[in-house]
Amino acid sequence: MTGGGEFDFIARLFQPLAGEGALDLRDDAALVAGRAGYELAISTDTIVESTHFLPDDPAGSVGRKLLRVNLSDCAAMGAEPFGWFLNVARPPARDEAWFIDFADGLAADQRRFGVRLLGGDTTGTSGPLVLTATILAWVRHGEALRRNGARVGDDLWITGTIGDATLGLAALRGACADPDGSLTQRYRVPEPRLGMRLHGIAHAALDVSDGLVQDCGHIARESGVAITIEAASVPLSAAARSSGAAIGRLLAGGDDYELLLAVPPSRAAALQAEAARAGIAVTRIGRVWEAAAGGRVMVLGADGAPLALPRGGWQHF
Amino acid sequence: MTGGGEFDFIARLFQPLAGEGALDLRDDAALVAGRAGYELAISTDTIVESTHFLPDDPAGSVGRKLLRVNLSDCAAMGAEPFGWFLNVARPPARDEAWFIDFADGLAADQRRFGVRLLGGDTTGTSGPLVLTATILAWVRHGEALRRNGARVGDDLWITGTIGDATLGLAALRGACADPDGSLTQRYRVPEPRLGMRLHGIAHAALDVSDGLVQDCGHIARESGVAITIEAASVPLSAAARSSGAAIGRLLAGGDDYELLLAVPPSRAAALQAEAARAGIAVTRIGRVWEAAAGGRVMVLGADGAPLALPRGGWQHF
Repeated sequence: MTGGGEFDFIARLFQPLAGEGALDLRDDAALVAGRAGYELAISTDTIVESTHFLPDDPAGSVGRKLLRVNLSDCAAMGAEPFGWFLNVARPPARDEAWFIDFADGLAADQRRFGVRLLGGDTTGTSGPLVLTATILAWVRHGEALRRNGARVGDDLWITGTIGDATLGLAALRGACADPDGSLTQRYRVPEPRLGMRLHGIAHAALDVSDGLVQDCGHIARESGVAITIEAASVPLSAAARSSGAAIGRLLAGGDDYELLLAVPPSRAAALQAEAARAGIAVTRIGRVWEAAAGGRVMVLGADGAPLALPRGGWQHF
Repeated sequence: MTGGGEFDFIARLFQPLAGEGALDLRDDAALVAGRAGYELAISTDTIVESTHFLPDDPAGSVGRKLLRVNLSDCAAMGAEPFGWFLNVARPPARDEAWFIDFADGLAADQRRFGVRLLGGDTTGTSGPLVLTATILAWVRHGEALRRNGARVGDDLWITGTIGDATLGLAALRGACADPDGSLTQRYRVPEPRLGMRLHGIAHAALDVSDGLVQDCGHIARESGVAITIEAASVPLSAAARSSGAAIGRLLAGGDDYELLLAVPPSRAAALQAEAARAGIAVTRIGRVWEAAAGGRVMVLGADGAPLALPRGGWQHF
């Protein structure tokens, strides 16, 4: 790794993850050759023990979550990830055995998603474990999906199901049943929705990480539109349905890492065909409206009336 | 910034630092167009409060150090930096006033070095402040300087002066005099040696961050050679000379961020001309020898005999 050599054993653990351009993690920088007709999309996320993952989460799932939350950003941009950087600030209590499992989880997901480690840095900290991943992805020139492209009349679509991860976190805290462990799994190992070619289909996209309602607010604000979510249309897993959790809680909970898409009605069939090809479920959950002042999100109940959410039916961002 | 919105005020502070490709720090990723004939060199470093900087170092200098230790990696690769990413794990005690000064320091160095912020992530931590910078730089295809290219017969050159930063750290701890503050300044704000075109001149390069002897070991190991350093030739500042510190301590201290170069004698004049053009001092300090087993560094005293260093005259890495 570039930088300090405080944790040679970690560098040894990570070297098997390195690929072309990493220079064996032994130089001052990695080298990436350009790709004609493509732009580089670069995304970075930091996750902190006790904030983004639990201290006793399995090390392998912590590594996979780190990688996957960044892969999800690539999916939201319509970009194909190929390489990444790992920065570790490590407390003394995290021993070599922990990092062996951590690296095993990373190796499994590198194979699955076709990415390779390009570089990073390891250092010590007296505080909680802090992990940063920075992902590089290729996107055809001019084809990146943005948050600011939603247009009045677009339908709003979501991949997968919403609310499982927030229930999984509750289950890990003993506040929710999770008989088959599926909710916990969704919290620990999100599923980045890579593989769809959405240029020419979606006007706007983002990955839902802060909660569906809040992230709808991001699209509404950046695009200068209003958004309604039809609560009864939001797809829920069988486990979430049988949890009895209020819909408002599921719509406000975080860590879903599903793609939220603004798609004109004329492209609905194209979206469904592309999603079917990629093996990803998509559901229409709402609509984009004109907004005198942008940034408004309203959740409608089954009767069409605004739903009272924990922070009020209208969310202002 | 991409990722969580825990610290909107930080995002506001950092938005003025953003430039082309950052998408106003409001999307899931930054976008970087390719540059024909160039490769992208990417370097990343993490610095942690109380390990890489002192808790009461001025916020502006912490920002500049973060940026400069990465710019120094670019210099070592012979690459021209243009953009960077910032990840912050922030303890509650670091308030907005601290981050205003931090961003001011970054803004000053962005102007000086011609780089722009492209993205990042901010989150909270219950531990010390953890800062990660990831820098992007262009280098002409095939012209990147590596650590593994030193050849038997090369001379070893160093930029600037050695040992000031380690004395500056000692001064901040009350263990060394620093009448004009120059040693402290070198510890807090290193000087990345950008601006020389060293392709075709240097066979190998790295930036000295772990201490001159240890970093010579990195070149020796990666290149499969032995290295001798002539202690009397190592350039020292007036402040370091008058400190009375033993030479062994200066050669082993870290945070110099000078460039260490392996240059064939036939290119010495070209190196000196290029350094003069860039306004950077360079000094010949040693030589590259054949090594049956690579990785050996010997420091020679003024009498030509091996010098006893704190960890022994021969360093094995």
